[in-house]
Formats: sequence, structure tokens, C-alpha cells
Amino acid sequence: MNLVNSKTSVSQQIVDAIRSVVGPEPVGLHEPSFSGNEWLYLKGCLDSTFVSSVGKFVDRFESDIANFTGAGDAVALVNGTAALHVALMLAGVQQGDEVLMPTLTFVATANAVTYCGGTPHFVDSETTTLGIDTRKLREYLSEYTEQRSNQCVNKTTGKVIRSIIPMHTFGHPVDIEGILAIAHDFNLTIIEDAAESLGSYYDGQHTGTFGLFGVFSFNGNKIITSGGGGIILTNNKELAAKAKHLTTTAKLPHAWEYRHDDIGYNYRLPNINAALGCAQLEQLPTLLEKKRTLFSRYERAFDKVGGVSLIKEQNNCKSNYWLQTLLLEFEDKKIHEQILKNTNDSGVMTRPVWIPMHELEHFKSCPKMELSCANSLSHRLINIPSSSNLI
Amino acid sequence: MNLVNSKTSVSQQIVDAIRSVVGPEPVGLHEPSFSGNEWLYLKGCLDSTFVSSVGKFVDRFESDIANFTGAGDAVALVNGTAALHVALMLAGVQQGDEVLMPTLTFVATANAVTYCGGTPHFVDSETTTLGIDTRKLREYLSEYTEQRSNQCVNKTTGKVIRSIIPMHTFGHPVDIEGILAIAHDFNLTIIEDAAESLGSYYDGQHTGTFGLFGVFSFNGNKIITSGGGGIILTNNKELAAKAKHLTTTAKLPHAWEYRHDDIGYNYRLPNINAALGCAQLEQLPTLLEKKRTLFSRYERAFDKVGGVSLIKEQNNCKSNYWLQTLLLEFEDKKIHEQILKNTNDSGVMTRPVWIPMHELEHFKSCPKMELSCANSLSHRLINIPSSSNLI
Repeated sequence: MNLVNSKTSVSQQIVDAIRSVVGPEPVGLHEPSFSGNEWLYLKGCLDSTFVSSVGKFVDRFESDIANFTGAGDAVALVNGTAALHVALMLAGVQQGDEVLMPTLTFVATANAVTYCGGTPHFVDSETTTLGIDTRKLREYLSEYTEQRSNQCVNKTTGKVIRSIIPMHTFGHPVDIEGILAIAHDFNLTIIEDAAESLGSYYDGQHTGTFGLFGVFSFNGNKIITSGGGGIILTNNKELAAKAKHLTTTAKLPHAWEYRHDDIGYNYRLPNINAALGCAQLEQLPTLLEKKRTLFSRYERAFDKVGGVSLIKEQNNCKSNYWLQTLLLEFEDKKIHEQILKNTNDSGVMTRPVWIPMHELEHFKSCPKMELSCANSLSHRLINIPSSSNLI
Repeated sequence: MNLVNSKTSVSQQIVDAIRSVVGPEPVGLHEPSFSGNEWLYLKGCLDSTFVSSVGKFVDRFESDIANFTGAGDAVALVNGTAALHVALMLAGVQQGDEVLMPTLTFVATANAVTYCGGTPHFVDSETTTLGIDTRKLREYLSEYTEQRSNQCVNKTTGKVIRSIIPMHTFGHPVDIEGILAIAHDFNLTIIEDAAESLGSYYDGQHTGTFGLFGVFSFNGNKIITSGGGGIILTNNKELAAKAKHLTTTAKLPHAWEYRHDDIGYNYRLPNINAALGCAQLEQLPTLLEKKRTLFSRYERAFDKVGGVSLIKEQNNCKSNYWLQTLLLEFEDKKIHEQILKNTNDSGVMTRPVWIPMHELEHFKSCPKMELSCANSLSHRLINIPSSSNLI
């Protein structure tokens, strides 16, 4: 059945398919699940009186995440935006630089670049991973940039393109091999935005461990949460130490003296949030299994709904299936809007992908490549209820 | 007895005086106390699953703090540094501006000014409140600034001095009347740094409610803590709404659309931290009483120790006595260092005031007035154990 020929029924078919999986009650997009040691660790944290920027749970959360992902070092921060900010600074992004990122991303990425005095430079996505289209990006960079003193210079603006921020959209790994090759050939540092992809792997390697830095978020809507929280991963010990130093007001160690040797930030994750994060991380294997089961159920339910498919992990990848995502076969703004309205009106919470960054008023003048696929995807993607407690 | 003539014994006298109040066990500088509803509210927060940037405790914390202080509006943020940053932005501080602040302050204040592209401009303190010396500042501004188009211009640098950040040091209200008069006469906006002064009043009015903005911190070492947290107070409804908008990624309200209309920040206080803050705020009256009792006991204990006095609230003020503070009669770096060493070696945690900002390498080139009092105070002040659980 073709979506375009069944305008009146497709949104009802989608509601029905979702309902067949999640049941008749009102259902949110993504709710956290606290069924492990969350309570115990929070109590332990209060009893210790160490609830703030120092405490054993912060150290443990860092080493637990490093162990889980296989990264050399992990530094815990107050949220994913702060993690992006510090990673960009340490990747060398400075006043006047440009930073490549998908236009289909969360606004925090573009914001963080501006915190460093840089300008976002928007690139297109492709439909299988929803991440950067590496083939198209390579062609674009070959034509519009040149190497000067081993720096990638945008021939149009004359500015240095310092870094690239690939993102693993809704948990689906981007073509990171393609990104690594581009970064190598064009002299770019990689800050891997793995905010949504804890538990996702590319060729057996955990996302967030390929770039100079990997950045994670533990906001309340993520696969695990610490209330608010973020982490920077890196395999570079010196950069990890610098990240920790900068995020703790750049204070030099001393028994009582308050000496700081740089402009620093108050970006350290509080111990009470880390306590929650530690308990949540213990639950991750279970949550990942449930997410995968939920995907299979949706896959069966949507098998007979025409004109719409579910975003599925690539053969060489394992997705955490953080947010289950529908892709409409054809772009039709009216139908897209109708589906969003009908599902939400029926108590089934759904949402579109972000408005592409280049369409936001304050980023309209930023440099960008041709963005037809991202533009189209922004009217074809719909996230559907994805909570692990639906299983 | 003169301090200078009893070099060997003064630090022992200080240890003895502190011990006579706090007992023989090792004692920290400041520990939080969780003896109220902390447990209950954290559990309620987990059970609701709203642990992150949305939740009833965030709203409640804001209204509770507004009610307690008498401010028009309160906006809860992830920490005091973020609160300073946003307050400075909304007070109009921009690239190239200078901002007056005491050189005797915590480094976050100077850092926050640089986040806005501004330059700290350091001013001197006085010995009764430990805050800005308003008489000296007025003379300095009269000589070294001029008004151009209703802006205060530093005649030496040619830059606009946009704002002033008075601070209530260790809970002791600064001469805010003097500050208000200076701000009026020289066209400066006031961001009142009340990070340390929750529960402190000037002429019966709560600190943090005099300026365009007041900024509070709920870090683990403060009189009450939310793990990490901060609040902006203001009596300007429009600015309060802007602060909330900017701290929540500048997202426009919509059921599902992700449209943002400005460079925004991820600075919202998580609900789980607000839950802790709400429970702590209920304890504040008790904590304030205990702090006051502790001060009285120290006052008696130090009555017979020569060459040293305790910083005491001014007649028209009520201090929260957050950190109890010794002032040595004479400046002697060696004795100061010896006291710090001997107390800490004896298991009595003490610390000096911050190294003055103008002495930090990366702020050495910032504009400053003559700073003799602050320089002297930095070698005369010592914070002594101040936890409410010592009572």
C-alpha cells in the first residue's frame, strides 16, 4: 500500500501498529527505569555526606564507563553539552574556526561550537544510518577546501575547518570508517557525538572510542540517566588529565591553597548524580536486551503498514535502539504533521527529528553543503515510544 | 598578647581554642547535614521517574527560594557559576566590556566574566565585611572613569565598565547601600554574588535581592546543598523568563517540534538535585541557629587569644555565619602559613581566603585599582571548622 494513496488511514494504521505493541494506555516517548541499586546508591551517597563534586561514585562512574566502552579514560561532567564544549576546546577549536557537523542533530552541538568562538558548518545525512553522508562529504571537501600548512581551509570563507562532530543518531552508528578516512585525509580532529549511543558498536568496537574524544549524555531521556550528566572518553591520557583539570576550575592540587592556572569551568558531575549513574549502568545490559526486543515487536507490527519502515542497524553494527524510529517512504509535510498530531492526540507520544540546524534563524548564515537528504529526512522521520518498561 | 611576640605559641593557641569548641576528633571545614526530608524527597523523585530537567521539585525549589528571600522570581540552574554566566549575559556584559569585582573572591566570578568575552576589573576590600571598599571604589571610579552616552568608560583602557559584582564574603553582607549608590551614579548594573549568603540580611532585606540579579550556589560546601546547583534571583519578570529560556536551550514551547530561537545553554537544574535542595531548605532555619551558636562559642573561646579576632556581623546586618573566619591582627605570611599548617596537621581543617584574583597568572594583566587591603587580608584571614553538626 502506498502512503500517498492512503492519506486518511496511514496515521491510524501507525497508531494501531504502535498500540498492538505497547497496549492501550497513554504512553510516553522514553521513560527511565529504576529497578536496580539506584535507591541503595543514593542512600549511600547521602549517608557519606559526599553529594557534591568529590566522591567515590564519580570516580567509579568514570571507571565503569571506561571499562564498559573499552576507552582509555573517562571524565564525568555535569551534562553532555558541557562535555562537547570541553572536548571542542581540547580538540583545538578556537575563535574563527569552523566545525563540521550534521545539520540533523541536537542544537547543543551547534551551541557548543559557538561557546568556543567557532562556527558550525552543516553537512548532509543519509537514510540508512541517519548520520553524515561520508561519500557526499568527501566530494564536497575535495571541491571546496584546500590544505594550507596542514590545515583544512574553507576556500569560500577562508577559515580553518578544525574538527568534525559525527553523531550516532538515535543510537545507530554512523559510517565511522568513512569519517576516520575523511578526518585523516583532510586534517580534522574528530569529536564523536555518542550522546545517544551508549551500548552501540561499529565492527565490534564501542561508539565514542574512535575519535580523539567521544562524548556521552546521561540526561533523563537517554538509555541510562544520572539526572543530568555527561562523559568525555579519550585514549589520550594527557588530554583526559586536561579535561579533568579544566572542568574542576583549573585548580592546582594543594592542601589548602586556592591557586588556579587557567580559565576553568565548574563542569564536574556531582557525586549524587554519579551514584544514580552507577546504578543505571549496572542495568544497561538488561535495558539493551529490552530495547532490541521492542524493536523486533515493532518490526513485526509494522510489517504490514505500507509506505513506512523502521530504521534498522547496519550489518556491521549493533545499535542500542535507544529511540525507535519510523521512516516514511515519501516526503509529504502534511502527512508527516498529521501522523505526529494523530499519534500524540491518541496518547501515543511521538516526535519528529530535530529541525535541521541550518533552518534555525540564528544558524541560517552558517556555511553549509547541499542538504537535500537531511531536509527530506526532517519530514520523513518519526520517533515512536521507546521506553524499556514497555517490555 | 601580641601575635608577633608569640610566634611559637599562637598557632597552638588557635588549635586549642578551636578544640575547646569542636572536641578532640578530626574535624573538617564544612560538612553538609542531612537530617530532614532529604531521603523522602529523593525517593519521591526516583519513584516519579522525573529525575532530570523537568519535575515538580525544580519548580518548588524556585518558589521556595523566592519565598524565603522575598525575591520576585527565582530560576534554578546547574550551579552558581552557570548562574553568574547567565546573569552577566542578561545584564548586558559583552565582548570587550569590563566588570568590577573584588579581587578577593572565588575564581568562578572572574571566569564567568571571560565566558561573556569580558575582562575582570579588580577592586579592593575592607576589613569589617571583607567585601568591596565602597569609599575607596567611589574615589577610584571618579578619578579613572568618565561617562560617555550614559556608559561608564575606563579612561585608561577606553572600555565600557558594564557591571559590578559585589560579594557577601563567607556570608557577611557587603556595604550594599554603598554599592547601590555607586551603581546608580556610575551607570553600572549589579549582579549580587550571594553564593555564600543564603540566610544573610542587610537592613532586614535578604542579600541577593538588591541587584538586577542575585546569584546563589548550592555546592556541597554551602550552607545548604543540592549536590550541585545555583539560582538566579531577580525582580524583573521579563529577565527571569529570559534566564529560564536561555538555560533550557532556548527552545520554544511546542508539543513535539524542536525549534530554538537563540544560542542557548544546558544549564537547567536536574529535578533530583532540586529534590535534595527542597529538603535542605526546610532545614535552613535550624542550620542558621546552629551557625550562630557556633559563632558565639568560638567568640568566647578566642576571647583570650591575642592578636586574632573573629569576623562578626555588622550592626545593621544579620550574617548566616556560613564560614567562621579568623582575622590576624598583623600581616605576617610566615605565621599565617604556620597556623594553616599546624591546624591542618592537628586534624583541624582550616584554609586561607582565596589567592587574590590579580595574583593568578592568567588574570595578572587585567585592570585593577590599588589593592593593599585585599593583599593584606589574603595573609591574615583563616576559615576554621564551621559545620552545623558541630553544635
